[in-house]
Amino acid sequence: MKQLTVVVKPFRAESVLKAIAEMGLSTFVVREAKGYSRQKGYLERYAGSEYSLAFLPKVEITVWIEDADAPEMNEKIVSVARTGRIGDGKVFVTPLAWPGALEF
Amino acid sequence: MKQLTVVVKPFRAESVLKAIAEMGLSTFVVREAKGYSRQKGYLERYAGSEYSLAFLPKVEITVWIEDADAPEMNEKIVSVARTGRIGDGKVFVTPLAWPGALEF
Amino acid sequence: MKQLTVVVKPFRAESVLKAIAEMGLSTFVVREAKGYSRQKGYLERYAGSEYSLAFLPKVEITVWIEDADAPEMNEKIVSVARTGRIGDGKVFVTPLAWPGALEF
Repeated sequence: MKQLTVVVKPFRAESVLKAIAEMGLSTFVVREAKGYSRQKGYLERYAGSEYSLAFLPKVEITVWIEDADAPEMNEKIVSVARTGRIGDGKVFVTPLAWPGALEF
Repeated sequence: MKQLTVVVKPFRAESVLKAIAEMGLSTFVVREAKGYSRQKGYLERYAGSEYSLAFLPKVEITVWIEDADAPEMNEKIVSVARTGRIGDGKVFVTPLAWPGALEF
Repeated sequence: MKQLTVVVKPFRAESVLKAIAEMGLSTFVVREAKGYSRQKGYLERYAGSEYSLAFLPKVEITVWIEDADAPEMNEKIVSVARTGRIGDGKVFVTPLAWPGALEF
């Protein structure tokens, strides 16, 4: 199994959740989080020394999925969350280790 | 080492945290999260086309533990968090990679 | 690639975020979380039976980074977040699995 960590803009979150649901997944966790984006200010652009930290609201979704279904899920999430602008989102894939997922 | 991601119902969280503490763990992180459960509505059941997304409050606990202690921890968490109804909770196990855990 | 989960005290979070930004990372996620610390009470110390759960506010930062950059990042985070007292923070390293990170 794989664990997918999906970071998207809040206004795309519902579409992503619907896409996940359509693939039949019944377990995933959603959290509000702050994403980070480095913003170059005037001084940095010209002198290389100053910058500011800009925090952007993000929705973080964690999904656990069978290996065989992971590529389709990745593709679906990307196709739904992409708007064509930079910084729409990311998917990070980590492996599960034995015993993988316990359900109770 | 292993990282355990535990997703349980809020009213079982304290029992799970006590079980973890009894095993001597001194580092874990707790967050409130929304779990997802697909709810089939009338139209979906009969026509296959409509459904609604139901978000349920969950508590998410992340635990880092030595490989040798992981099976006992898994067993303890499941035994404490199980109530006999579907959807009580899940444990997902991921491996750590070198250098594993840094403490400072 | 590696995923680093960083757990630090809130008053050190900004320094850690700046250190991460200085390494040029443009994607990471920040959340408020509760850390756990077992506090031994009078009865436990003398009779071994009673204890209380103390939750401490923590900031949890998740960073995704190339393998080659992970050791420097670990070192930088630890050097910035360390105050010399026990419980300053932790870094947990997990591997990414194919296809690793998708950006869109």
